Amino acid sequence: MTSPVRLALLGCGTVGSEVVRLLHEQSADLAARVGAPLELAGIAVRRLGRDRGDLPVDPALLTTDALGLIKRDDVDVVVEVVGGIEPARGWLVEALRAGKSVVTANKALLAEDGGALHDAAAEGGGDLYYEAAVAGAIPLLRPLRESLHGDRINRVTGIVNGTTNFILSAMDATGAGFAEALDEATELGYAEADPTADVEGFDAAAKAAILASLAFHTRVGAADVHREGITEVTAADVASAKAMGCTIKLLCIAARGVDAAGRETVNVRVHPAMIPLTHPLASVGDAFNAVFVEAEAAGQLMFYGRGAGGAPTASAVLGDVVAVARNRLAGVRAASESAYADLPVRPMGEALTRYHVSLDVADRPGVLAAVAGVFARHDVSIATVRQGSAAGTTGRGADAELVIVTHVAPDAALAATVGELRGLDIVRSVTSVLRVEGGL
Amino acid sequence: MTSPVRLALLGCGTVGSEVVRLLHEQSADLAARVGAPLELAGIAVRRLGRDRGDLPVDPALLTTDALGLIKRDDVDVVVEVVGGIEPARGWLVEALRAGKSVVTANKALLAEDGGALHDAAAEGGGDLYYEAAVAGAIPLLRPLRESLHGDRINRVTGIVNGTTNFILSAMDATGAGFAEALDEATELGYAEADPTADVEGFDAAAKAAILASLAFHTRVGAADVHREGITEVTAADVASAKAMGCTIKLLCIAARGVDAAGRETVNVRVHPAMIPLTHPLASVGDAFNAVFVEAEAAGQLMFYGRGAGGAPTASAVLGDVVAVARNRLAGVRAASESAYADLPVRPMGEALTRYHVSLDVADRPGVLAAVAGVFARHDVSIATVRQGSAAGTTGRGADAELVIVTHVAPDAALAATVGELRGLDIVRSVTSVLRVEGGL
Repeated sequence: MTSPVRLALLGCGTVGSEVVRLLHEQSADLAARVGAPLELAGIAVRRLGRDRGDLPVDPALLTTDALGLIKRDDVDVVVEVVGGIEPARGWLVEALRAGKSVVTANKALLAEDGGALHDAAAEGGGDLYYEAAVAGAIPLLRPLRESLHGDRINRVTGIVNGTTNFILSAMDATGAGFAEALDEATELGYAEADPTADVEGFDAAAKAAILASLAFHTRVGAADVHREGITEVTAADVASAKAMGCTIKLLCIAARGVDAAGRETVNVRVHPAMIPLTHPLASVGDAFNAVFVEAEAAGQLMFYGRGAGGAPTASAVLGDVVAVARNRLAGVRAASESAYADLPVRPMGEALTRYHVSLDVADRPGVLAAVAGVFARHDVSIATVRQGSAAGTTGRGADAELVIVTHVAPDAALAATVGELRGLDIVRSVTSVLRVEGGL
Repeated sequence: MTSPVRLALLGCGTVGSEVVRLLHEQSADLAARVGAPLELAGIAVRRLGRDRGDLPVDPALLTTDALGLIKRDDVDVVVEVVGGIEPARGWLVEALRAGKSVVTANKALLAEDGGALHDAAAEGGGDLYYEAAVAGAIPLLRPLRESLHGDRINRVTGIVNGTTNFILSAMDATGAGFAEALDEATELGYAEADPTADVEGFDAAAKAAILASLAFHTRVGAADVHREGITEVTAADVASAKAMGCTIKLLCIAARGVDAAGRETVNVRVHPAMIPLTHPLASVGDAFNAVFVEAEAAGQLMFYGRGAGGAPTASAVLGDVVAVARNRLAGVRAASESAYADLPVRPMGEALTRYHVSLDVADRPGVLAAVAGVFARHDVSIATVRQGSAAGTTGRGADAELVIVTHVAPDAALAATVGELRGLDIVRSVTSVLRVEGGL
């Protein structure tokens, strides 16, 4: 048989130890698929002494010198599952420049400085694969990179963060508020002790940047992504959504558009939004992920699966390892970064969105006219209005509820409309403001 | 710029003309993605004189001599969208042996004699891609071929025929019988004038063979697939399914198993089955397709989208064209056929399935004991029994309904059980027999 392809594994936590386990358990199958055995040359860890249970690995392979391991001549492929910007960036740039192939699950680094990695890969001639960086085990990046290359993607809408989807699913199911649902998620291990990266949308924004880059052949970084988390989603919002036949999801959206000058642009954003229960994304519950793609010729596509967890992520990592190992044996590189379109990123204020707004208003003639006038002043067209007695005010008799859903308008105009409504005398309170997606 | 990659297109019907249109409309984007322009060297058609509307193509490119076109030295890639076994097989074997790359949507040919095509590709050194052959535009084969190569697939369950899914969705929505729903599908253009290939499950069986081959690294042909269509699904079956919180889908199932001797096997089958409404496949309505994959590490994955239609299929064809064109420019081949596992195909009788059986029985003591005795004699374990008054017999007083769901058992034992039940005196009629899938 051919001489082995040798791997350096950087990191041996939840994902890394699953990679080690799968390499061990499926070594015969993997060798058949690659055409040569896969062999671990070494594993870089933070602490040598840690108890690693029954991990099927020779302790002599462990090292704390990641850079030394990467530089070894007998290492062909570097697999990084450490995460974070540094020292991962330095390690991977070093590896790629030296001509090694890299498989990484590091979404933060790719979103922060993917360009540096792609440039280093081009310089060294190795492959850079990162299927595990978005939506865990769901084979998603390869279809975007390759299968849809003959098509034109217009929009990508995804649920790409399992923690927030678990929390929102719980709020929807039980009527609980955000804090209570977060507590449950933490208890069950779906949320980390510090949940900021998840609940504030940073994790989803990094994935949005990666998805947008691939879908639109344009370098999009985390800084280009408009980001809102779910911490301000209330039980009242969830109830409003239900009343509309909708559910609330934290969506990452990357959409092609055209600016005032007629140039093609792309807008990339992460925020909670109402989607109709009939939308395929609405039934994606708990910690599952799914990405909905709209392409010119292919129409609507959806990819669904587990977005996180040691084994699912390790599956995606190993799929990439098999691919880059085969490429090395064949002496070839996969398609490199495709950023030829280089579309300008449009700021959130110019993105076209729809709003759902619930108001408690004084129950007297002329109120609807006054409210509608505010929308008109901002050139925002109203799609539907529903009037009823305000929730929680029954008995007072003087208030009414107005629920308004708009047509699409520039996000800035919608935000300004809501701002002005808040200042109106006749508006007692704005009880819920949510963007609407998915064709309500 | 590099010299163009030249394509021979075989067939210019619904799919072919969409391929021509997309090649024309997206020529600049495609060239950027490939690294060279894509150029049509010729189009083989049956009749030169046919009106082709405003197809953006030089009439001089049309020819009725497919083989002559294929053999031309200036053709690099052959794209076949004609369908059927012959003459497509001869053309593609010729093209592949001559070292050309082939992109085909021909599921029937791949299921009938995929081995001959793979062998010819190996001989000639070109690529053989066929994403469009299963589930239209859904990027599915590439994930199976590549992304999940580091994992172990245990089961693939798919809705891969849009016509039958449309019919079953209509039966579920309206309570109509099969014939009525078929008429509606025909009127709306979802069923062909001769619907045999769809409603008898031949189309789904071909796709099942292709999916199984890829998932299990084993050559599986159409003849290896157990096939039952939907023509015998009745309104009573649909009502029975609803009463169980289920819906009926025509499923293609490819499952790994172990035979009596402890050897790994694979079972591949197409038949209608009840699945719970909570299963992700249950909400795949109308003419949509979806494929649900269960893998060892990745867990549950689902791929969803349009399974047919000119534009979606053309999108998949062009994705493949871009891939094989890039490979040619790089002077490389993609991973070739992977059939190393070579698992034996287990006959249907040995496959483990579950049955749902509804019976009209005499309403007297001892009936349940007698019925349960039949299951026991065949070593079939009963999961649940529900007794009620038989539908349509109210007023007669002498009949009762028994609804039985079994645990898994060899399909032959289940079939024999039903056969014996039909012969029992106390059983007035067997009103519904359906397999149950998806963990009811």
